[in-house]
Amino acid sequence: MAGERIFLDHASGGPLLPSAQAAVVKVLAGHGAAPGGGHREARESQEVLEQARKQAAAFLGVDDPERVVFTSGGTESVQSAIRGWGEGVRKGTIYVSDMEHPAVEAAVHRLEKGGFKVVRIPVDGEGRLQWKKVKPGEGPGLVCVHLAHHDLGTVQDLKQAAAFAKPARAQLFVDATFGAGWVSLPAGLDGVDLLAISGHRLGGPKGSGLLFIRSGFPWRGQMEGGRQENDQRAGTENLPAIAGLVAALAEWERSGEKFRKVAREAQRELLEGIRKKVPKAKLHGPEPGPERSPAHLGISFAGLEAEALALVLDRVGVAARGGGGCVTREMKIPPAMKAICAHPEEARSLMLFTLSFNTQPSDLASLPDLVFQACQRLKDQLPG
Amino acid sequence: MAGERIFLDHASGGPLLPSAQAAVVKVLAGHGAAPGGGHREARESQEVLEQARKQAAAFLGVDDPERVVFTSGGTESVQSAIRGWGEGVRKGTIYVSDMEHPAVEAAVHRLEKGGFKVVRIPVDGEGRLQWKKVKPGEGPGLVCVHLAHHDLGTVQDLKQAAAFAKPARAQLFVDATFGAGWVSLPAGLDGVDLLAISGHRLGGPKGSGLLFIRSGFPWRGQMEGGRQENDQRAGTENLPAIAGLVAALAEWERSGEKFRKVAREAQRELLEGIRKKVPKAKLHGPEPGPERSPAHLGISFAGLEAEALALVLDRVGVAARGGGGCVTREMKIPPAMKAICAHPEEARSLMLFTLSFNTQPSDLASLPDLVFQACQRLKDQLPG
Repeated sequence: MAGERIFLDHASGGPLLPSAQAAVVKVLAGHGAAPGGGHREARESQEVLEQARKQAAAFLGVDDPERVVFTSGGTESVQSAIRGWGEGVRKGTIYVSDMEHPAVEAAVHRLEKGGFKVVRIPVDGEGRLQWKKVKPGEGPGLVCVHLAHHDLGTVQDLKQAAAFAKPARAQLFVDATFGAGWVSLPAGLDGVDLLAISGHRLGGPKGSGLLFIRSGFPWRGQMEGGRQENDQRAGTENLPAIAGLVAALAEWERSGEKFRKVAREAQRELLEGIRKKVPKAKLHGPEPGPERSPAHLGISFAGLEAEALALVLDRVGVAARGGGGCVTREMKIPPAMKAICAHPEEARSLMLFTLSFNTQPSDLASLPDLVFQACQRLKDQLPG
Repeated sequence: MAGERIFLDHASGGPLLPSAQAAVVKVLAGHGAAPGGGHREARESQEVLEQARKQAAAFLGVDDPERVVFTSGGTESVQSAIRGWGEGVRKGTIYVSDMEHPAVEAAVHRLEKGGFKVVRIPVDGEGRLQWKKVKPGEGPGLVCVHLAHHDLGTVQDLKQAAAFAKPARAQLFVDATFGAGWVSLPAGLDGVDLLAISGHRLGGPKGSGLLFIRSGFPWRGQMEGGRQENDQRAGTENLPAIAGLVAALAEWERSGEKFRKVAREAQRELLEGIRKKVPKAKLHGPEPGPERSPAHLGISFAGLEAEALALVLDRVGVAARGGGGCVTREMKIPPAMKAICAHPEEARSLMLFTLSFNTQPSDLASLPDLVFQACQRLKDQLPG
């Protein structure tokens, strides 16, 4: 094993953007007063909060900062988007694929138990949602779609989603917890009614996230108590995390083009290298390009077990994720691999290599060799 | 206005303990890998998380760290304690006073709407819960009690609460979001089934909190999705906040005796000084001593409006809270003042002075004079 570790599990967690870290630390070291009080310190914190809300709205391209709710992360944003809609409308139809993040699926399942109808959106072999195959049901409705898929990297066509939602009298919820930053959002969030972002997925702090809720349809906050966040989310505001999140968003506005370009280059080189060294390696989801997140490669190595491969890679200095992201223990196979009808051997051997704002193509130069060696080592251990 | 600001709104927010800040910053600056993966970085984060859980269990005096759930703060802890119990048992009786924190009241209200019976626990003139006046109803039950009251400072007798809960076949939920650290918990959390702590209330980071859930009764997690926190709370773990929270808890184990002693002294001197300077000033809740949190003074100034007084105090260099903590906009009067049957003039003029681990008696020497001046200034502005 030579040199530095190669860390490619950024979808699960990774380092902070330096600007985000500086913003968190600055607020952490301050007086810590909560916004919303009659004294100077409270007003100062209120000012930080309002500025942050404006910056978040600017990143989203929306005019109404008061519809941006800061949360404790992607899971809370997603859960409160869907459950809050459900409590608002009381009954209706949810349109959703079979391969969403467990936080989405759990909220949908809850509403289904409560009497909501669930219509499943089929997907093609690369994970694209097949809108033409879905029949609109009874309104009110909620269309749940991800911006980019956490296991396949697939970027969804939000225009198609919005075009489906409108005549179905459905709100459109976009789970951008995977993809935001790396994949552009529709200008002005056109057609989008609810949108969830996870801070740590774009170099912001853990424990930060946001939910955008367009006005004009019933929605009920899920965290109740104090009157924070314009009555949309109770609890003392986590100002250091909020400051870090919007610093990260601002960094993506400034440097996103560069981050995407570098990642795209690293992604292509890595994929080519692995394909050359390990002919059995198979990319799932679309080829690198506009239909795939530049920060994501999901590659199967049929015949091997992903978790075992991840362990061997770890020993040679590579941190990657075996077995799909956000997979619950019962699932032997990532739901997305089932949804795209991947061969079970492929499904069981899916490795995720996820990039960050600071991943350089040169960092990954040795990776194809290491993957080849790891595959060889595992094969040698196989019986027969 | 002379010298430094005097900040006495710590119940709303305040500075971090230096040891907590150092712990947050250390994890923030690290690799940021999420716990729960097959690689070295994930294992390192897992180790930090498990150590933190053990430290939290040690602070609580319980043997089962896996029953400690890290949350995004006090509101989430409280809400998920009560709603999680409600979803677990499906029907039953809730015993609760009329003066709980809005996060408690909102969760109780939700369950009441869903068919749960609510029995109100009366309080005496100083906010002590009157257990002998409550009749146990149908089991299963949940007794909701605070450790110390956020507006009155009253420390509740948890032995009495547990003695009531047991024959009522009720679980005992302790909202320790105000009081933890300042007020000791029962050894081994004897008799307590659920307990909520807010990190920032004891010098830990905002966005941190915990919920202890004893095993042996039905309870359902409220944040669903990934399998974090032993399936009790989904969402990528906020490791910097968790590290900061347990660093704060450890600091209270080391230095709590000193913090309490110094605060008690500051509390007594401040109260004496204000009483001497402003004879109309009236303390609500118990006198300083074992029945009152050492970090809290709730004083009314009949004839004045609390919010106006807070603004005048702010101008002379004092940050304090007028009108009770955690009061929602509709409430002109803190519910606790209604519950203890305070005179409306007192209720409208309640000022909270809340202390911190770093409040020194000498810092407050000028405060009685400043309060006197502020009262005078306000009186001069009154008509007639």
